[in-house]
Amino acid sequence: MLDFNLIAQSGAARAGEFSTAHGNIKTPVFMPVGTQATVKALTPEELEAAGAQIILSNTYHLYLRPGTDIIGRFDGLHRFMHWDRPILTDSGGFQVFSLAKLRKLTEKGYRFQSHIDGSKHMLSPETSIKVQIALNSDIIMCLDQCLEHPATREQAVAALELTSRWARRCKTFWEDRTGRRNHLFGIVQGGMFADLRQRSAEEITAIDFPGYAIGGLSVGEPKELMMEMAAHTLPLLPADRPRYIMGVGTPEDLVELVGLGADMFDCVMPTRNARNGQLFTEQGTINICNARFRDDTGPVDPACDCYTCRHYSLAYLRHLYMAREILAYRLNTIHNVHYYVNLVKAMREAIMAGTFKAFKDAFYAKRGKIEPAWF
Amino acid sequence: MLDFNLIAQSGAARAGEFSTAHGNIKTPVFMPVGTQATVKALTPEELEAAGAQIILSNTYHLYLRPGTDIIGRFDGLHRFMHWDRPILTDSGGFQVFSLAKLRKLTEKGYRFQSHIDGSKHMLSPETSIKVQIALNSDIIMCLDQCLEHPATREQAVAALELTSRWARRCKTFWEDRTGRRNHLFGIVQGGMFADLRQRSAEEITAIDFPGYAIGGLSVGEPKELMMEMAAHTLPLLPADRPRYIMGVGTPEDLVELVGLGADMFDCVMPTRNARNGQLFTEQGTINICNARFRDDTGPVDPACDCYTCRHYSLAYLRHLYMAREILAYRLNTIHNVHYYVNLVKAMREAIMAGTFKAFKDAFYAKRGKIEPAWF
Ligand SMILES: [Zn+2]
Ligand SMILES: [Zn+2]
Repeated sequence: MLDFNLIAQSGAARAGEFSTAHGNIKTPVFMPVGTQATVKALTPEELEAAGAQIILSNTYHLYLRPGTDIIGRFDGLHRFMHWDRPILTDSGGFQVFSLAKLRKLTEKGYRFQSHIDGSKHMLSPETSIKVQIALNSDIIMCLDQCLEHPATREQAVAALELTSRWARRCKTFWEDRTGRRNHLFGIVQGGMFADLRQRSAEEITAIDFPGYAIGGLSVGEPKELMMEMAAHTLPLLPADRPRYIMGVGTPEDLVELVGLGADMFDCVMPTRNARNGQLFTEQGTINICNARFRDDTGPVDPACDCYTCRHYSLAYLRHLYMAREILAYRLNTIHNVHYYVNLVKAMREAIMAGTFKAFKDAFYAKRGKIEPAWF
Repeated sequence: MLDFNLIAQSGAARAGEFSTAHGNIKTPVFMPVGTQATVKALTPEELEAAGAQIILSNTYHLYLRPGTDIIGRFDGLHRFMHWDRPILTDSGGFQVFSLAKLRKLTEKGYRFQSHIDGSKHMLSPETSIKVQIALNSDIIMCLDQCLEHPATREQAVAALELTSRWARRCKTFWEDRTGRRNHLFGIVQGGMFADLRQRSAEEITAIDFPGYAIGGLSVGEPKELMMEMAAHTLPLLPADRPRYIMGVGTPEDLVELVGLGADMFDCVMPTRNARNGQLFTEQGTINICNARFRDDTGPVDPACDCYTCRHYSLAYLRHLYMAREILAYRLNTIHNVHYYVNLVKAMREAIMAGTFKAFKDAFYAKRGKIEPAWF
């Protein structure tokens, strides 16, 4: 069983630690996304240099390509991709929902066709867990039902009820495996309805998982609504388990959500935006295409000690990006992943020091902003 | 003046060494191509790990983008691209010839339009040297006139005569600069005509350069013809200067040309082929897309100690390549550049040991081939 050690609190913000088969994880933590058994453009060594403790990979993608028969030959993802720190895999539900063709939802699971070759597949709670165990992920996720946004209350009720039934099937199937070394997390749904979020939280926590995720946020709703749902749901989750907000978000989102008591995050923003030329800095986001960087001999962020900022100028990064060089995507990604991982690490240090509020004020001040009044 | 130290010979094959403003170069040497101030997909540290002593970059590309005003702010290419070992730049002539639009050749130089934005430019012997000095390249090349293949004898004569006149202008212009730290190499042309190669070699060596290149090979002619021209021309170049065969070639080409007394090489094959999924091994070339690699847990080449071969399987490389992941291009390029650089390094060691002939026999034997009978 996962033993979540709550080390410090600063307001509702928490610093904790827990162990996995591939090492300890200090929370709050940001998990870079490695969809296809690679965090796009980076090597595992570069992830380690950024301080990444754990990465997220995708069950849907890996199940379809290269397939679990191949990854099984390496006893799972770690050796396959040369990453020996923890891995969390999602259930595949969100990708079926957003990528697959001709998907059909039944009580049994998702029937769908591959977005790659049109081949037909069934993703059930049991197959999702089975695949994630074959991947030998350290943290595996229950299959849940994702919702379109906006969704009606009726749709949200049906989805949360199915998510609860599937969560029970996931737990039963997982408990029936022997020699399991994974932590199985439950996922709270409920759409944008506070009372349904509460009902889902009650049902999922009643099943008893070693950690809990909040799914179905950042799906197109206004930022205020996302924050409202998170603020409402986070306190409903047991204080002695890690709390993971899935697929969120901007640096500001992370600062706010850590402040509300969230422990784990994943998001494609640092990697995807890097490939679009967007770089995160303490002063805010910049776009490397901007003509003002043409002859700028300084680094992206003088406060950053990543490989990119130590050795390359904005002028060079802009040149590489305009020339569509692969090194542009690499150097941008190194910086952005370093930024995200270390933003969350800095929050942890502030929580440990009891100065999270001051950290947050300084974070917004550097951006020339004041903290948004969400509540 | 460049002081070329001829250390050992094994048959016609030579091992030498010479110094530049950014360090010594041991020959024979392979120079990875970094067209746009980056060897595609690699960092300078990865090039160093492969053992690269010197890279080649392109005057035409860098003159157009980002421009010498930008690179001048970094006192040249080295600091701009974070590479502190030697750099050779070509003259830009070949790129004008192969890439530019509406080029027009006059005695003065090439008038052309940029392939990027259609802007109008003039590349003369003087501007080529001026740009290369601004790039602070360690070895700079005379502007020459490239030929279509096949070319008539008349065309080849005209091109070699213009190349000789331009070479004199390049040397004069370069000698008039003060504080120069570059070595200026002359280029022998003459098309596919042995007597014209001889005439060009006589004219160019009479001008007296610290090193000599043979241009206009590997332009579409049959392999036998290329080898015949090289075999004919190499002995015409002074033994006490480095001899550089431009833009060549396959591993077999390099083995043959070193055997004929060539010292320096550049070629896009290791980098370009890597991005096309082709990997060089001691046994020959493989294509990573091949279905037989789908579940192969072994490395590309068990004899290779590059980062890719030490940590990744063929199955993983195939997966990354099929998924079009950036890491695929990186890992393939690391292996191929390592292969090329170390093939030439191994030849140097064999020459020093006086065993070049045995090296060549073993090289072909591992490929299950016998050495082609060129002559
Ligand atoms: Zn940085
Ligand atoms: Zn290798």
